[in-house]
This record gives sequence, C-alpha cells and structure tokens, in this order.
Amino acid sequence: MEDPVLIEVLRGRSVESRHAGAFAVVDADGGVVLSAGDIGRPVFPRSAVKVIQALPLIESGAADRFGLEEAELALACASHSGEPAHVAAAAAMLRKAGLEPDCLECGTHWPSNSGAARALARAGEEPSALHNNCSGKHAGFLCTACATGHAPAGYVRAEHPVQEMVREALESVTGAPLAPEDRGTDGCSIPTYPIPLRAMARGFARIGSGEGLGTARAAAAARLRAAVAAHPFMVAGSGRADTRIMEALGARAFVKVGAEGVHCAALPELGLGIAIKCDDGAGRGAELVMATLLRRLLPLDDAAREALRPLAEPVLRNWNGIEVGSLRAAGPLAA
Amino acid sequence: MEDPVLIEVLRGRSVESRHAGAFAVVDADGGVVLSAGDIGRPVFPRSAVKVIQALPLIESGAADRFGLEEAELALACASHSGEPAHVAAAAAMLRKAGLEPDCLECGTHWPSNSGAARALARAGEEPSALHNNCSGKHAGFLCTACATGHAPAGYVRAEHPVQEMVREALESVTGAPLAPEDRGTDGCSIPTYPIPLRAMARGFARIGSGEGLGTARAAAAARLRAAVAAHPFMVAGSGRADTRIMEALGARAFVKVGAEGVHCAALPELGLGIAIKCDDGAGRGAELVMATLLRRLLPLDDAAREALRPLAEPVLRNWNGIEVGSLRAAGPLAA
Repeated sequence: MEDPVLIEVLRGRSVESRHAGAFAVVDADGGVVLSAGDIGRPVFPRSAVKVIQALPLIESGAADRFGLEEAELALACASHSGEPAHVAAAAAMLRKAGLEPDCLECGTHWPSNSGAARALARAGEEPSALHNNCSGKHAGFLCTACATGHAPAGYVRAEHPVQEMVREALESVTGAPLAPEDRGTDGCSIPTYPIPLRAMARGFARIGSGEGLGTARAAAAARLRAAVAAHPFMVAGSGRADTRIMEALGARAFVKVGAEGVHCAALPELGLGIAIKCDDGAGRGAELVMATLLRRLLPLDDAAREALRPLAEPVLRNWNGIEVGSLRAAGPLAA
Repeated sequence: MEDPVLIEVLRGRSVESRHAGAFAVVDADGGVVLSAGDIGRPVFPRSAVKVIQALPLIESGAADRFGLEEAELALACASHSGEPAHVAAAAAMLRKAGLEPDCLECGTHWPSNSGAARALARAGEEPSALHNNCSGKHAGFLCTACATGHAPAGYVRAEHPVQEMVREALESVTGAPLAPEDRGTDGCSIPTYPIPLRAMARGFARIGSGEGLGTARAAAAARLRAAVAAHPFMVAGSGRADTRIMEALGARAFVKVGAEGVHCAALPELGLGIAIKCDDGAGRGAELVMATLLRRLLPLDDAAREALRPLAEPVLRNWNGIEVGSLRAAGPLAA
C-alpha cells in the first residue's frame, strides 16, 4: 500500500484503526500546491463530481426552460439523505418536465437519514426512487433529456445523449481522458470513469474559479455553486458533513462527498481544488482529511473555526454518550 | 502501514478500494500455522471475544442457577441485530434473574437489522437497551452478578467483580497480560483491552479444543460453542455472516465478529484459532478474510462450499440489482 496513513482512530490512548489515502490540492492549471500519496492513480470519483455532471442541465437550457429553482439546482448536485424536502424537490423537478417519478432509473432505497426512514415506516409507507440519494441528479438528467428533445427512457446508459454530455463535461473540466474500457457502473446505474486525483482537483479548481472553462461553462458552474451555497441542506442533509461545512463557510467552499472515501472541494477565493481518496473507502477518513485541509487552507474567523471543530476534531462516543475515542490527522496530514 | 493489502474491492475491472490487515492462524500452544501482517501488535478485540467474556456466566454457576436455555447462552455470546427473537431472549434472561430491562447498562440503539428497526417504528415504538446488540452479553453479566451475590448496579465498571472475572478469563485464555493503562471503553461501556492477534488466535484455539483451559473452563467453552452451533441466529441475525457461516458449518467453526474490522474463529477439529484485524476497521474486509481462511483450512463438502460462496466471493450490486463489482482476496491471502 503505497499511500501514507492520513487518519488514526483512537480508543483510549491506543490507535485502534487507521486510514491510508491520498489527496491533492491543485490550481486551475494543474499546479500541485499540496499533496500526499499517489495522486496520479485513477480513482472512481463516484458522486463527488455531481456538480460537473449537472453542468449540462444548465448549459442545455433545461434549467431555464423548466424554471428550476435554486434549491432544485442544489438537489441536482446532491447525494441527499431522502428527507421530505429532498423528496419534494425531486418530485417538483420531474413535474416541471412533465414526468412522473417512475421515469427515474436510479433504483430505490430507504432514506439514508434514519429518522426519515423510520418516519416513512411509521406512516406505513415504502420508499420510491425519489428517496434514492441520487434522485435530484437523475431528475436533472431527465430535465436535460426532455429539453434537448431526447427520449428520457434509458438516460442512464453510456450511449444516451445525456450521458455523452456528462462525459464530455467530465473530460473537459478535469482534462483527464475517460477510457470506455475502464468504465464502471455507479450505485445509481450511470457510468463512472476513473480519474486521477490530480485531475479531479484541477477540475474543482476550475469549477471554483471558472478559469479554463469558457464563458458559458464558467457561468453554469458559478450558478450551481451559488445554488448549493444558498441551500446547503439540499446537497446532503441533516447532520451531514457537506451541509454543515457549507452552512459554516457559505460560498467560500463547495464541498461534495462521493462513495468509497472520495471527497472533493472547490475553494474559489484561493483558486484551488481539492480531491481526496481514502484507499479503504472509508467516508469517516475522507471527511476528516477534508475538514483538516479546509482549516489549514482557508483563513477562518472564530465562528467558522468553531463550526468546523466537530468535523476536524471528531470525538467518538458510545451508546451511553461516554467519550471513548477520537479521530486525528496523522502522517503528512498532521505535518 | 506495515500490513499488506489482503482485500481488493473492484468496480468494473478496476480496483476501487483496498483493505490492509493482519491475520493469525494459531494452535493452542501459540504455534503460528499461517499469518500475514503484524500479529504481535495489540488490537482491541471488541465484541469478537464475547464467548470468552461469557465464560464466567457458566463457571460461576449462574447459567444453571437461573436455568438459562441454550438459545440464551448463544445470545450471551452475541452481537445481535435486535430482531424480535433476540430481544425476547434478552428479556427472558433478565426475568430469570429477577431483574428488569432497566438494569442493562449497555445503552440504547435502534436494531441494526433495518427491517426490525422499521417494524419497531411502524408499530409506533422506541428501542430499549434490549435492542442493543450487546444486550445478551449484558444480561449474562447481570445473571453472573446476581448468582455470585454482587450488586448488579455498575456491573460495566472495570472494578466490578463481574468485570474482574471477565478480565481474568481473557487474560488466562489468551495468555496475554491486559494492561489497565491501555484499557479502552467499548461501545456498550465495558472495558476492552488490546490483545495481540497471535494471542487472540491462541485463545480461540483453546476455546475450540479446550486444551490448556483446565476441565471446568474447557467444559464451559464447549457448552457455549454448542449453544451457538445450535442457535446460530442468536449470535448475529438475519443475513449476517456469523449466522450464515455457522448455519453452514455447525459446530465445525465458532465464528465471531468484533467492531472495527475484527473477526475471530475457533476450528475445533483442527485445533486452530483465527484472529483477523482489518487495519481500517472495515467489517467487509475482515469478513472476506474469514470466509477465505475457512474455505482454505476446512475440508468442505459441496453444500458447505456453496453456502460459503456468497461470503467468500462477494458480488457488489447497485440499487437496480445490477452487478457493479466484487471483492477478492489479494496479496498473501490470495497466495
């Protein structure tokens, strides 16, 4: 395992577990400002790049044609927790495009927010595809298909024009060629392509600054970032790191989690992008790398620093609320 | 990170994530039959050693005095999923000792079985400490306290006579000294002490064969193993690896998971014990190491081999049921 340990999990005074990984902090030209581990190895970005995957929704004119609201644009970039506001916004997006929820091809799962899942059960209901954490992104894909005159059915397939647009956006923003032979299938059934962390971070630097994107794409990226900054609840949900970070930092950081330990961010005021991969896929590891880097890179006032503290200095409590351990930065991340 | 990669997680044809770790396969004398990684480093065994922690329940005479049934003894060794049969058995154990559920000091959480959690919510109920995955172990502690004339209150504290008995059992069975200064607090609030994998595996070899335990302790271990072999559902729950493995292998393997990527087993017919730690704490990694070692070490008929296949060759499916990836043994585990 060539990557260094970045995070240690302590119980009492002993290290119980540890997470190795890599991260890249990069400018819009691809210049590496800070890094650890192998940032050239291709990594599946999973949901971390939803903001890039949502660019065609703006660029195609679909968002304007269907009068999507800011909260709905934020949901198009989201891995949401399936809470009522998320579900309602996804349904509204589809309604505006004249579609029904059964057009969603992302599959169904219970809300990841356990309270929302139990509330659904308590009401005697079952989840639908609207509760899928990707339903906003998929509603955006469907809006894009409708606005560009393409059949919505099969919009998740790599050959569908919507996925071609998404692929072009990913390739052009990150500068990384996406090889069809390396294509994987994501949890929500759309294609996912491995991209080196360095290119991913460069893509986020561009998403943040607009640099190198061209006028229309830069405007689309700015519009999506503004939407998420205004509605950080929509991009994740109650208690989730991305929501809490953007509630604290507003438009100063666009932060997005991906499955299997991926986390990306754009820091517009610094012109930098961040891409993190926890090698073992642990979200808790990637999240703490992100919180640590944000505290290090961004000048923060006391309120913002205080708001980030629970994420940057996580304490582990057991079922009785007793403090039993903590997580801390290690190795090159602690340096 | 000195330990080798033991497990790779694939998406499409690419490795998406990987788990480093260590494992020890050891006989009752401490002879190492097979190993990888650092097996001398102390590791918190967490719930993997519940069968050892349950020895005083038998040895003190508490199990006989209160007429505990086999299923209840299995539950005393369990990290259960909070399904109705688990909850009922924990309540029955307490009733037999004349205690109420509010004597449990393990804390409360929703059942880890999501169906059971939703059923509880659907019924308008809230979880109690009986739903805590450790409630059977704690009910056993309480039975032991009552049978030995000690006050039940505070039975989770390191100084309580029950925890002294548990500590003696752990130290004596594994042969590892348990240092008070390294003591951590477990999820259910009892003490947990770091133990090297090699000693843990030796302890399980002894639990399986009785060798080196003395007559009474060997009989207690055999009784607990038989109870779990007869009631594998009680030790974990629906769909869980430990339950499935012991449903397939019966008394040929006693297998027990612990939090943070620990997995232990006793293989009586071979006189061997297994102890595994996935360094990053991932249960999916430890579980696949266990399934791989069981298939390698035990002669299996076709039915048993087939029953273990989903655990030993796990396939990843997405929300639409599409096969998107797999997990496989790597490095020294694949050799």
